[in-house]
Formats: sequence, C-alpha cells, structure tokens
Amino acid sequence: MAKAVLTSKRDDFPKWYQDVVAKAELADNGPVRGTMVIRPYGYAIWERMQAELDRRIKAAGAQNAYFPLFIPESYLKREAEHVEGFSPELAVVTHAGGKELEEAAVVRPTSETIINVFFSKWVQSHRDLPLLINQWANVVRWELRPRIFLRTTEFLWQEGHTAHASQADARDYALRILHEVYEDFALNVMALPVLVGRKTERERFAGADATYTIEGMMGDGKALQMGTSHELGQNFAKAFDITFQSPSGASEYAWQTSWGVSTRLVGALIMGHGDDAGLRIPPALAPVQAVVVLVRDEDGAGERAAALAAELAGAGVRVQLDDRVDTGFGRRAVEWELKGVPVRVEVGPRDLASGSVTLVRRDRAGDKATVPLEGLGRRVADLLGDIQSALFDQALAIREANTAEAETMDGAREAAQTGFVRVPWDRFRDLETDLAAEALTIRCLQRDDGGIAASSADDGLVATVGRAY
Amino acid sequence: MAKAVLTSKRDDFPKWYQDVVAKAELADNGPVRGTMVIRPYGYAIWERMQAELDRRIKAAGAQNAYFPLFIPESYLKREAEHVEGFSPELAVVTHAGGKELEEAAVVRPTSETIINVFFSKWVQSHRDLPLLINQWANVVRWELRPRIFLRTTEFLWQEGHTAHASQADARDYALRILHEVYEDFALNVMALPVLVGRKTERERFAGADATYTIEGMMGDGKALQMGTSHELGQNFAKAFDITFQSPSGASEYAWQTSWGVSTRLVGALIMGHGDDAGLRIPPALAPVQAVVVLVRDEDGAGERAAALAAELAGAGVRVQLDDRVDTGFGRRAVEWELKGVPVRVEVGPRDLASGSVTLVRRDRAGDKATVPLEGLGRRVADLLGDIQSALFDQALAIREANTAEAETMDGAREAAQTGFVRVPWDRFRDLETDLAAEALTIRCLQRDDGGIAASSADDGLVATVGRAY
Repeated sequence: MAKAVLTSKRDDFPKWYQDVVAKAELADNGPVRGTMVIRPYGYAIWERMQAELDRRIKAAGAQNAYFPLFIPESYLKREAEHVEGFSPELAVVTHAGGKELEEAAVVRPTSETIINVFFSKWVQSHRDLPLLINQWANVVRWELRPRIFLRTTEFLWQEGHTAHASQADARDYALRILHEVYEDFALNVMALPVLVGRKTERERFAGADATYTIEGMMGDGKALQMGTSHELGQNFAKAFDITFQSPSGASEYAWQTSWGVSTRLVGALIMGHGDDAGLRIPPALAPVQAVVVLVRDEDGAGERAAALAAELAGAGVRVQLDDRVDTGFGRRAVEWELKGVPVRVEVGPRDLASGSVTLVRRDRAGDKATVPLEGLGRRVADLLGDIQSALFDQALAIREANTAEAETMDGAREAAQTGFVRVPWDRFRDLETDLAAEALTIRCLQRDDGGIAASSADDGLVATVGRAY
Repeated sequence: MAKAVLTSKRDDFPKWYQDVVAKAELADNGPVRGTMVIRPYGYAIWERMQAELDRRIKAAGAQNAYFPLFIPESYLKREAEHVEGFSPELAVVTHAGGKELEEAAVVRPTSETIINVFFSKWVQSHRDLPLLINQWANVVRWELRPRIFLRTTEFLWQEGHTAHASQADARDYALRILHEVYEDFALNVMALPVLVGRKTERERFAGADATYTIEGMMGDGKALQMGTSHELGQNFAKAFDITFQSPSGASEYAWQTSWGVSTRLVGALIMGHGDDAGLRIPPALAPVQAVVVLVRDEDGAGERAAALAAELAGAGVRVQLDDRVDTGFGRRAVEWELKGVPVRVEVGPRDLASGSVTLVRRDRAGDKATVPLEGLGRRVADLLGDIQSALFDQALAIREANTAEAETMDGAREAAQTGFVRVPWDRFRDLETDLAAEALTIRCLQRDDGGIAASSADDGLVATVGRAY
C-alpha cells in the first residue's frame, strides 16, 4: 500500500520527507517565503513536545516569561559578534502606524539582547541569583534555503536565559538542562538515542565559552543538532552590564547560560523514526496513541467500537475513534499509518462475533494479532510501553550499524558518506577546516566513555564526524 | 501597610492600575513603544488562563494550529472593510535577508486573512465540515495610546476560526464558544460576573453578521469587553472563495465563525478584583494558591513550615514556601498581598508551640484566624473554594450596586458616570450616536430575562450603557 502513497526513503530521502510532511498533514508552506503553516496534526505533536519539555524546564527551576517580538535595532549593535552573525537574517519593520519609524524595529531572531537588557535591571544583589528564565515564542531568521521544520524563516522555540553568581553554578546549570531536559526528553519521549557532547571551538555559539549539544542520527545517516545549551561565561554580562552585589559588597559580573530547542524537533521525529509508510510516533509523544477503526458498522460493531474507545480512554490511552465507514477501510488504514499512530485496533463484525479484535503495531511492519476483547485496555497500555522501547532500540541499532571508526582523513571521508565516524580528536584537532571543505563537521567531542569532555584541550577525546542538516 | 505601597484606587484608578502592574511584578514596558515584557508572575497567570481556556476550546471540538506571523500585503486587500479598519495599525516588514522585499510582509494584526486562504484549500466537501481551528499566537496592532495588558502594540491571544455547512450550525457554534468557553471561564475561573449579550450593529465587528460579547465591570465602574464571538455568515467565504460540495453535489459557500480573547484578560483580573493592597487572584486561576510564610526559623519552625508546604501540595494545593527569614516578615506579607495569593499560612515558633498556625484570607481585609495544625491541608483546600465564591459574590454585589436603570438620555448620561445603565433599546435605538458623543457605548443587548437577543430588531430588549476601556 505504502509504495503508492510516498516516495521511498531510499530512492529520494528529501522527497520522502516532503511527502510525509504533506501526506500526514503536518504542515504546508506559507505564502511568505520560508514560512510554514503548522496543521492541526503537526501542531498537536508540537504541543506534546512543549508540554513534556516545559514540565522538565520547570522542574529545573526556570520560570516562563514573555519578551516583545520587536527589538530596537540599536540593541543588536551592543554585541558586535551577534550582529555580524545575524544581520543578513534579520527581518526589519520600517513602517508602522501608517508612517516610517524613527528607529527601525527588528523582528527577534532570538530574544538574547532584549532579555539581557532586562536582566541588567532585575539583577542587583546576589539574592536575585540565580535568575532562571525561559520563553516559548516565535522567532524569525530569513532563510535562503528553507526546508519545512528544519530551517524555516519563522519557527517556534523555547529559549532559556539564566544568570548565576558563580562560574561553577552556571556550568552546572547548563549541563543540568542538557541532561535533565534535553537528553531525557530525546531518550524517553522521542525515543531517539543522542550523542551528548561538547562542540568544538569552531562549532560553538560565538557568544559562548562552551556549547553542549545533543545530536541525533536521521534516517539518511546525517546528523541533526537537536538542542544546545551554552555556558556564556561573563561575555553578555559585560556587554549588557549585568552586575550584582556579592555578599561581601563587591560588584561582580553575573555568569550566564542560554539553551534552546525548536520546531526542528518535529523534523527530527519524522527523519529519526519515519519509514516508507509514513511517520512512526513514539507513544510518549503521540497525540493519538491508539486509533479504534470500525471496519463496517454491522451487527452492533459501531457501538462496540465506541465502547472500546471509551475503555481505552479509561485506561489512560489517548485514543481516537475512526467510524468513517463511508470511506474505504484500506484508505483509512493507510492514513493512520501515514500519521504514525502507534497502535491500530481494527473492529469488524467477524472478529467481534468471536469475541476478538485485531491489533496492529505501527513499529513493526505487518505485525497484526487477533486478541480477545477482554482486558483490551490493559493490553494496549502495555503494548504502548513495548512500542516506546522498540522504537528506541531500532533507532539505536541503526545508529550503531552506521557508525564507523577511522584514524585518517581518507577513512573519515569515506565512512561519513553513510553515517557517523568516530575519530581521535588528538589527531583531527588540526583537520577541522579540511573536513569542512568536504561538507563534514565534528558534531561533538566526548570522552572515550561517552561522557562530556571537560575541555576541548583534553587528551584522548573522541570526535564524531558527520554530514549534518 | 498597603497605603505606603500603592496609590489608592479611589484617588487615581489609572495610577493604581500601573502601580499594581509594577509592584506585583506582572509586566514592564518594552523598549519599542506599546510593547510589554510579561514577567514570570504575570506570565504564570496567563499560562493558567491559557490552560483553562484551551481545555474548554478542545472540549468544544476545536483543534490548535499555527499560521505564519508574516502575511503578504496583498492578502489584506482582499477584504476591503478589513484593510480600512486595520491599515493605520499595521507594522510592515519592508527589508529582510539584507535587502528590500519585492512584496512587503505585514506582521499579523489577526490571522483572519491567511487562515481563510488555507480554509479555501482545505475545505472541498461537506465531509470536511465543520472545520474548527484555534490558534494561540502573538499579534501586532500599532497603538497610539498603549496601556499595559489592555491595549498593547503586541499582545498574546487565541483566535478561533471555523467553517460550517449551514448558518444554523455556525450560529450554534459561535454561541457554544461564547457560553461554554468564555462565559464559563469568566464565571468559574476568573470569578467575574459578565453580561452576555449581542453587540449593536454599530459596535459589532465589521465583517460579522452578529457579534456576541462578554462584558465585565471593572473597579472604576467602566466596562471591559473580555471576549467576543462572531457569526460571520458567508462574508469571508465569499471574499476568500471557501466553498464546499454539498451532499447533493451543489457548490455552496461555507458559513463561518471567529472568536478570541487576549492578554487583556490579565487587565480584567487586576481591575475586576484588585484592591488597595494589590491583586486578588481567584484560587482557580492563582499560580500560587497558598503561601506558607516562615516567620522566624527557630525551634524547628523551618522544618515544620517545609513539611506543611509539602502537606498542602499533597492535598492538591498550588503552594509556595517563603522561608526568606532574612527579609522582614512585614515586607514579605505586603509582597504576598500585592501578588494576590488567596491564602497565607503564617508559621511562627509561638503558634507552633501551641500546635497552630495563622491563616490569612486575601479576599477579606484583616481576616486572620489561628487554626490547629491538624488537618491543615483539607482546611486550606476548603478555604480556597470559599474564597473563589466570595470573590465572585463581591464582584457581583459591586456590579449590582453600580448598575442603574434609566429611561431617558439625561438619566443614562448621569448614571453612566459611575457604572452601568440599563435602558430600553426600543427607545435608545436612535440615540446610539448621541451616546457616543458623550463617550458612552451600548455594551450589549439582552432580553429582559438576561438571555441573548436573537436579533437587534426584536422588541423589548434591554441595552446596557457604559463607559468602556
């Protein structure tokens, strides 16, 4: 069935991606270049991501706030490196209220500058620290080569900004967000294994002393940077005059962090788990975890299907009833596969007569089982747990099968065509520019045991090389 | 205490409002004129509003989606009335990506046009209807006389847009949102009585056949329009070519609704319940329902306070522990009053020694009671229910005390200086322009029994006149 609906991943991965976005009704292109309309199903996925991330962010002590969309152009000039990086990406409001503005207003590419201006007002004493702020908002960076969810002119994200009294406290917090929010979310909600590591100096955020990252492998073997957490040192504190009076009465610059993830994660979901039949959504993330599909409304099957949906809802399953019997059953089955719903419960008069229904798992192609009606709620809830693990295991196996080791530039170049390559950082420290010339980047540095390198100057680190989105 | 902190409501209501916004740390002015920074406490209130509204919107069957911030200028010209209304309010992006745009992009003042463009693509058959979409987003309307939360250049809101197969279905849905979402939220979450009625033709949204509204009375006797729901007829369907094939095969224009509420509701909360000591937040809305204030950390009081906070959390209370004993107790008490936390639990060594704590209700000035430690969780949970009702009752009593009846223009003019005036619509039908000349508006039309008028042409309707925000 699937072949008729989607381009195959293997034949043309970018086209397959576009097909999934369109056919699963995740998003459409907006009329202004590079913008997107996130359709209800795509937005429901993003809402689930937001809820899971927001809960973890709050558990880490940060509070949400909201800063204005418009930033005075002069703000962006305070941090020279910033302007250089962003200037060609900015959208600028020159006219408003029917006339030309005295000072143009930039549509935020990030809220870094404006948040730091307010931090400098709010932070006075060591008692005001740590100040832990997060914002959910839309931001705009003009994209020349937009790709839906991955690189869009407008995207939705969260950006966290914090200020601390000491370097150690800031570093701990940047790593806490990395592990307790981003890594935990990737592993346990998105069911995607990620490399957790430190960016090289070349790859880190210009304003940061250190950038930490989670990197996922997509279905084509490329890397996707899924989230970053930055240790900013006192760089912004000095540019924006964020000082506090220490317990001893001295005036000191604050130590800061920032961290963010975006609607790009929807792209990670598609490319990390999708197959030739469409999306596959891990149950922890799925807006619809199980769909009860009524095959034909005969012999009371319609009522039974509705009752089963209610039973599943009662068992804590996010369930939807599909009783559109005037649409062909096959077409509906294809639609639910496209949408990646983890479990399909098919309810037909014949099965019902024998006291059973058919359970179809989305994580394994062709896995159908006839099961008794009795105890279906419990059975489906258990199955969702299995599917969550199975999707993670599959993604991990694929990453492992597509991760090579290399010692030389030639070896790295070749192996990186299909996946990740682990190379000795000691030897590749001076080869990063050569890699870049081949469109290869070092995704992150890790200790040999997978832990985070304390410094890129450490000996014996492993660098993972890959092609990247 | 409060007199030292805030301007009195009676002396200068606008100044009192500004003081509350600043001192309760709800929001700051942003650097671009008319924009605002919503601080963590203000944003936590908005998040609670969002969660309560979103739950009701979803229960009414609508799905969330997200449409782009930028709208091609040409879209706004499709609906002539629209452009005339909005043009002076628009913020326009003329430069992006380092050069001048071929077509300027308008920052959405509402997403009406762009949503309707996509509705015309998505709606093909009667099977696609009803299409029930909601969006949470920021919008921009350049304000010449901004006032924080009430009229800001950028504000946060939800806008619902729906398409239906029949006029009756669209009308029912507009009224369903009005009652089940907006009225229910105002009464049961915000604890604010609202007039629920129909706007006159002069006051209704230009693109609508009918506008329904909820109107609250603020602390100065003025009206605040808190939410509107529009029956759009086929007006936008014709402008944007939203047609569907009916079961009989005919092509028909869809019938539509739209409806919205915004961060203006935070203004309604402040002005609807605030007093000279600050905010008073109804428990159903309060981010912090009870604060456990440690008076002094002696004789194990600190541990007991923490344990009580945990007990309250266990009883389902949103609780915060204030153990900042190096800040004066009086100052902290003033702060929690400013922030409008419904219940204060004061824990001091002396009370503890006698097995009790002090409970302070925010809804009644000076209401303190010494209560036993035993069963505190249950007691506070019950008290929160009482406070929710008491705040509603107080607001209702104030509205009733400030609502007069009048039969003549002179009578209406005089009574409207301090509150609402109920006048016979039959007699005032031709006096609306005269009222406007006195800065008075008809807030809504109702049947004599308080029900919604089926048409403004009906006989015997009651019009409520007031000054308005």
